[in-house]
Amino acid sequence: MYDVVIIGGGPGGYGAALYAANFDLSVALVERDTVGGTCLLRGCIPAKSWLQAAEVYSTVRSAGEFGVVTSDPSFVWPTALARKDRIVKGLVRGLSGLLKQRKVEVVRGHGRLSGPGRVEVEGPDGARLLKGRNVLLATGSAPAGLPGFPYDGERIVSSDHALDWPERPERVGIIGGGIVGCEFASLLADVGSEVVVFEMMDQILPGFEPGAARDLQKQLERRGVSFLLGAGAKIGRWGRRITLAASGESAAGGVEVDTVLVAVGRSPATSDLGLDTVRVETDRGFVSADPATMQTAEPGVFAVGDIVAGTPGLAHAAFAEAIAAMTFIASGRPAPVDYRAVPSVVYTHPEVASVGLTEARAAAAGLEVEIHDHSFMGVGRARIIGRTQGFVRILNEPGGPIVGATVVGPQAGEMIHELMYMVGWEALPEEAAAFVHAHPTLSEAVGEGLMTAARRPLH
Amino acid sequence: MYDVVIIGGGPGGYGAALYAANFDLSVALVERDTVGGTCLLRGCIPAKSWLQAAEVYSTVRSAGEFGVVTSDPSFVWPTALARKDRIVKGLVRGLSGLLKQRKVEVVRGHGRLSGPGRVEVEGPDGARLLKGRNVLLATGSAPAGLPGFPYDGERIVSSDHALDWPERPERVGIIGGGIVGCEFASLLADVGSEVVVFEMMDQILPGFEPGAARDLQKQLERRGVSFLLGAGAKIGRWGRRITLAASGESAAGGVEVDTVLVAVGRSPATSDLGLDTVRVETDRGFVSADPATMQTAEPGVFAVGDIVAGTPGLAHAAFAEAIAAMTFIASGRPAPVDYRAVPSVVYTHPEVASVGLTEARAAAAGLEVEIHDHSFMGVGRARIIGRTQGFVRILNEPGGPIVGATVVGPQAGEMIHELMYMVGWEALPEEAAAFVHAHPTLSEAVGEGLMTAARRPLH
Repeated sequence: MYDVVIIGGGPGGYGAALYAANFDLSVALVERDTVGGTCLLRGCIPAKSWLQAAEVYSTVRSAGEFGVVTSDPSFVWPTALARKDRIVKGLVRGLSGLLKQRKVEVVRGHGRLSGPGRVEVEGPDGARLLKGRNVLLATGSAPAGLPGFPYDGERIVSSDHALDWPERPERVGIIGGGIVGCEFASLLADVGSEVVVFEMMDQILPGFEPGAARDLQKQLERRGVSFLLGAGAKIGRWGRRITLAASGESAAGGVEVDTVLVAVGRSPATSDLGLDTVRVETDRGFVSADPATMQTAEPGVFAVGDIVAGTPGLAHAAFAEAIAAMTFIASGRPAPVDYRAVPSVVYTHPEVASVGLTEARAAAAGLEVEIHDHSFMGVGRARIIGRTQGFVRILNEPGGPIVGATVVGPQAGEMIHELMYMVGWEALPEEAAAFVHAHPTLSEAVGEGLMTAARRPLH
Repeated sequence: MYDVVIIGGGPGGYGAALYAANFDLSVALVERDTVGGTCLLRGCIPAKSWLQAAEVYSTVRSAGEFGVVTSDPSFVWPTALARKDRIVKGLVRGLSGLLKQRKVEVVRGHGRLSGPGRVEVEGPDGARLLKGRNVLLATGSAPAGLPGFPYDGERIVSSDHALDWPERPERVGIIGGGIVGCEFASLLADVGSEVVVFEMMDQILPGFEPGAARDLQKQLERRGVSFLLGAGAKIGRWGRRITLAASGESAAGGVEVDTVLVAVGRSPATSDLGLDTVRVETDRGFVSADPATMQTAEPGVFAVGDIVAGTPGLAHAAFAEAIAAMTFIASGRPAPVDYRAVPSVVYTHPEVASVGLTEARAAAAGLEVEIHDHSFMGVGRARIIGRTQGFVRILNEPGGPIVGATVVGPQAGEMIHELMYMVGWEALPEEAAAFVHAHPTLSEAVGEGLMTAARRPLH
């Protein structure tokens, strides 16, 4: 009998297993693949490895203006692929070591509930029944499919396939201009592929600040990416190449591509989890959990990560939910995740990062907000590194606290963190603006945004 | 009669002038050079431009591992120099435009007090007397000299000269391992110069966390920089080259260098400022000011920036002091700078950034502290960008608030800002650790450090 049996070894599952050591809980972690989950094996880490390689390629191509003279660089796809694999393997090795050190028993196989407190594992060494005072479900998600676009791994691919493309595709159609679609568009454009993105909504990065989405779109367009907004896509013709057209249009007006990357979101991996053996409630495949404790309708059965209904499908949200669940299991005290202050980062070039409300979400919530922007154009360090596009946006209630922020620009994913506390702690602009940022840093744009929101700009 | 007459157009002076617009104060700004001050013309901005060029050179040289193949790069010094000049000019132009827009009258010439409220200006267009209800002194500083090392601008140089070196020096001796000395050592090593650094103290970056200084030293040594700690330097022999030896040693054991860069701190530029015409008090050339208001012993005469006794000589500290002074002038209410929470950044590769107390300063203040480190080694994004050296250090009182932090590593200068608020707001580790950092970011190392300080580590 374990204190906790965890099904799924991604960020939600391994995060919970690692955190359990703080309470001396005994843990079994069931995983059919290697540990790491989508994030480490087929998501954040490999994607950012590719984006970093593309970023280095861009840096080398513009190195001349810094006085660094070299021949025209070539991008050797297999080398970048091998480096990506090495990084993933190294992190998997590190994670495995950490799990061992924290005395987590990793059980290889497919885990399935068979009633409260019971997990059946079908593994390479046969079947096994694990019993736990608590069970934590963290089976994650997989790329969603799209009718009319059957995945074949070569011409119609998901991000799972695309991260292992053996060579650079020449022309790529991307269906979906969300985070995944935009990240691939950015990296493919940087390494010289032709890219066209179809997005159903009237902006890319739906849910993000429209101004930030427009800024990113403009910068990707400048690098050659085409966007068709408000447009579903259909396959007009299959041939040596595939012709993609906007759903309403004739196939004749379509664009020829070698490969179609479908990036229309992710589906929870809950179909073969034995959910019918317990009282767990689901919503279109997602598992409903009490946001205060991550407990499902079945006492002692918890859910975290991408399978949870209504919470963001982000690795760090899964970490936060894992921490909340384990804290409740160990102490009986709810320690709910403050989703208002969970940052979200798009690792395009430039990055887009957001925390808290956007103007649209504030309006939907009936909240009046002020918007204060500061551009990177006048920021010394942005000029020095040659990246002056983008801006910091602060949203605060009139005369009231900061409720949201978005950053578009270099290192946006790092800079968003100081704003995370502002949103979380409901700081007033003048409280935050009382601090002075180091000069010359990119974060000075945040400082200037805060001072502007406090009605006393400096620059 | 102006509301404020400002002497000195660096960050302290121009910051005050710009900020005055928030209160509709009429301002004259006296500057004998172009506006911008040390920071913009001869300090932070040109130095960081050089460091960025060196960083690009490093990136290009290691690009192969990312799959970016090119010929061996060469570093074309004049191109980097010209880019540095362009960046400085662009920022000066922007600043001049902003001053104009805020209706600041910029008066060209050397300004000198001639009694309270009176500033005499000797300029290209003759002499002029400016009267102000308040006078703000912001004349800044210049590189200090060192006996036995007379500046000639070629073989014995200050940072002023070194920023305009017309070509790459082959062998450089640097006297002083503080911020300026280390930044030059880092950039020179990156572009292939031989560098030896002499530092009187037993660590580089005196005042910073010794562990951070050791880490930086180790990394610079790996790139070929030699350090002689606890060692003054003397010139052993003048010849075609200069032989530098540690003060106690014989000249025979010295090292030959082409150029000696003296970086032993800065002296306040207050000798020709007419201080004797007012009741201003000084301390070895620095001006004493009330930390609550930046007012000197002479009512209506204020001082900010590098000339102020006992406050850090940093551009952003000057901004903060300018804001404090102008707020007091306009409102009569003190708005003191919280020096505890002023970050300090060394733009070496890797960067070192610090805020609040170090272990040594805590000990000197009789404050017991706990120290919690988290290395970048296991941080996904650090692996992805190939920079896993360095760590985040959090200092908190046992069971009490965070009182200091140091970061050594990539983007340390940006990451330090979230910790600035922790120190400023005296956050408890568990309050700060309740937030979840975006994955995969470098800032996760800060998050892990905070969780460790809160006694519940994740990774």
